[in-house]
Amino acid sequence: MRAALFDVFGTLLDVYSVTKRAEELFPGEGSRLAFLWRDKQIEYSRLRTLSGHYVPFSQVTRDALVFALRALRLPEQPDQITALLDEYKRLAPFADVAPALERLQRAGVQTGVLSNGDSEMLEPALVTSGLHRYIDIVLSADEVKAFKTSPLVYALGPRVLKVTAEQILFVSSNGWDAIGAAWYGYTSFWVNRLGLPLDELGRRPHGIGSTLGDAADFLLSFSNRNNTETAA
Amino acid sequence: MRAALFDVFGTLLDVYSVTKRAEELFPGEGSRLAFLWRDKQIEYSRLRTLSGHYVPFSQVTRDALVFALRALRLPEQPDQITALLDEYKRLAPFADVAPALERLQRAGVQTGVLSNGDSEMLEPALVTSGLHRYIDIVLSADEVKAFKTSPLVYALGPRVLKVTAEQILFVSSNGWDAIGAAWYGYTSFWVNRLGLPLDELGRRPHGIGSTLGDAADFLLSFSNRNNTETAA
Repeated sequence: MRAALFDVFGTLLDVYSVTKRAEELFPGEGSRLAFLWRDKQIEYSRLRTLSGHYVPFSQVTRDALVFALRALRLPEQPDQITALLDEYKRLAPFADVAPALERLQRAGVQTGVLSNGDSEMLEPALVTSGLHRYIDIVLSADEVKAFKTSPLVYALGPRVLKVTAEQILFVSSNGWDAIGAAWYGYTSFWVNRLGLPLDELGRRPHGIGSTLGDAADFLLSFSNRNNTETAA
Repeated sequence: MRAALFDVFGTLLDVYSVTKRAEELFPGEGSRLAFLWRDKQIEYSRLRTLSGHYVPFSQVTRDALVFALRALRLPEQPDQITALLDEYKRLAPFADVAPALERLQRAGVQTGVLSNGDSEMLEPALVTSGLHRYIDIVLSADEVKAFKTSPLVYALGPRVLKVTAEQILFVSSNGWDAIGAAWYGYTSFWVNRLGLPLDELGRRPHGIGSTLGDAADFLLSFSNRNNTETAA
């Protein structure tokens, strides 16, 4: 395996601070708001891709927040909306992320991200979190005007990295994203941070673990195994 | 307007009895199970369409139920799974459905359904509910191996009815389905049975009401208005 591609929001960066901020702004409603917001964000990204009505993820994220506020009968104040959207630009990485990315970097594995986010969301998030130091390549769904799990998005990886999808480990904390990548042809790994059952989609990721360290172990042991086989 | 196409599950047929049966089988968990089941059913239909991994809606529905049981740590017993799936074959129509369809039939409007359901789900549901008497044409996503909101599915309407999408009123109780149809080019109507806010997708259905009678009113007044204009 020559390279690893990572999903960003929820996989490298912890979106919990969004819930915390939502709770500060709307006491007692933070969890419900953050959950519905996330749910609608994903739903809108899929509907727009299915119907061929793409807008950037930052717009989808704003639209989803407005819907969630309305559905929960919370006030739609511009400053609160901005405050919540700004949280996405300063998310903290999970504690297991930097050590795992560093190990891969030392082992000579090329690393990149492949995210639904457009550059307006992605660049500040990677720089503020400090993760840009470990990331060689930033790939955004915005380049193809479609969202995951469209094959157009996953095609960016092999096209830019100049290896086959099978030679790339795709890592996501979203089971559906890991399955979408496996469907496309990647070797894929699900970081099941929340201990959820696997989605019933007739396809398993190639590896499953609970931290990014598990994903790094998988990739490095896979590469060692293959090197040994080649030598033998 | 020459014709009307209706979504089936939740629009013509009331899926509440599924929740009731779920509650009988799993006391205290019926609502959560039915909600998660429905949510996953829709999610899997979209993911499979986005990724080009179609299986019929009856399979999607079974997969979603298995996931929902597992996620809620409920037992996965074959007889209970069959009992819940069988509910889909004997759903009752909403009280407003037969009168509205009859009015349209008397006014000479051609009527059909356009559903994600395959014939295994759709035929028994329409016959058992008695709605087949008011329905001229049954169109299923299974014919094009894709689910809503794929344009492939909406294209079935104009192709089979031999009029433009704009000349067909597409009626759904799912806001996203009404918007998907409007995106495709239909004149579309959202039967907002649950009093939800409209999804923030940058597109409004042409009409919004709370019953199927409202949709029939919209179509018939629209046709009258246009006839008067043509005569004048």
